[in-house]
Amino acid sequence: MTRSPQRTRVQRLPDKQVEDRAVLDAVLDAGRVAHAGVVDGEGQPYVVPVAFARDGGAVLIHGSTASRLFRTLAAGAPTCLTVTLLEGLVLARSVFESSMHYRSAMVLGAAEPLDGDAKVRGLERITDHLMPGRWTDARQPSRKELAATLVLSLPIVEWSVKVSDGPPDDATEDLVLPVWAGVVPLHETFGAPVATAGLPAGIPVPGYVGRWAAR
Amino acid sequence: MTRSPQRTRVQRLPDKQVEDRAVLDAVLDAGRVAHAGVVDGEGQPYVVPVAFARDGGAVLIHGSTASRLFRTLAAGAPTCLTVTLLEGLVLARSVFESSMHYRSAMVLGAAEPLDGDAKVRGLERITDHLMPGRWTDARQPSRKELAATLVLSLPIVEWSVKVSDGPPDDATEDLVLPVWAGVVPLHETFGAPVATAGLPAGIPVPGYVGRWAAR
Repeated sequence: MTRSPQRTRVQRLPDKQVEDRAVLDAVLDAGRVAHAGVVDGEGQPYVVPVAFARDGGAVLIHGSTASRLFRTLAAGAPTCLTVTLLEGLVLARSVFESSMHYRSAMVLGAAEPLDGDAKVRGLERITDHLMPGRWTDARQPSRKELAATLVLSLPIVEWSVKVSDGPPDDATEDLVLPVWAGVVPLHETFGAPVATAGLPAGIPVPGYVGRWAAR
Repeated sequence: MTRSPQRTRVQRLPDKQVEDRAVLDAVLDAGRVAHAGVVDGEGQPYVVPVAFARDGGAVLIHGSTASRLFRTLAAGAPTCLTVTLLEGLVLARSVFESSMHYRSAMVLGAAEPLDGDAKVRGLERITDHLMPGRWTDARQPSRKELAATLVLSLPIVEWSVKVSDGPPDDATEDLVLPVWAGVVPLHETFGAPVATAGLPAGIPVPGYVGRWAAR
């Protein structure tokens, strides 16, 4: 693992920075949307949501060959992929110490397009991450669909991860205030699947969809 | 409302772009975390999660005066604030047409620091957005705490919003496949509040916390 400490070192709240790669992987594996940053020729940043998956030592994203974002990234533009899991509101006795429980992973670098079988395996990996079980059930991509898709791989070389999961950190003099303090957890949950209009009778909700809620 | 179409026009999937400012406001008002983009001197973008609130025609964010991100933004660096709500997985019969239900708001520009009473009102607005009812219950910021905090206002002038909320868009020839298709909704829900260790007896969970779940 090589890193550039000056770029990914957490400046503020350094106690929230975690050096453990397994913590980074856990954030990436629990997230469904990453926010990708790119910069235009005038120095203006853009932040765009993208579906993604971790594949071992890389983060994979996919998009259309007609997408400006994906064409820019495929050409090797520097990027930052950030995945944030919001897990609770932290109510301190003071507004100042109130905060959130979150885990946030950041990967910096340049992505490379995947081709051939690696490209197909990349799409399989993204599908397995977002919709486990779906790849072998749905119709897999045709040659034409593959040609219209970019699959990019960003190596996990320069990264940082922050974890905020502690109790409210009230100042000692605030502990006597008659104000409730604690954490209100936030969860992402699945609702009941809604079949599309016109689905032929006799096609049940797949068993793997039912198992997603248990993740 | 002025906009720069060449910067915020959705290039891909233009049918998902919505021109209605009320749609943008609804996304901002439903979100809890924005991802802010900034660029360093070498053209490297960084994407960082921040708490935020919409206040009329501006987005407010707050952070420490010791934060590199907030100092950079306070100096007028160009930024992009993106708020994404993930609302479902869209299972088409083909992997290619599978997608997500989401709403994503993007605001471009440069932020300005708020001072004096506007700064306090900004913190109140952010607290009201994230923890409605908390501002008048918790201890409000001291002069020293205010001095350690930056509150920045990004005017909503240049913006775009994308909404993906349709059914699976399968190709006609795929409609006969014996594959379930539809949408699996995703929701963010509150768990039961957890009081901090050492909270004095007799301080109940505030009524406003109970009402958050109903939002």
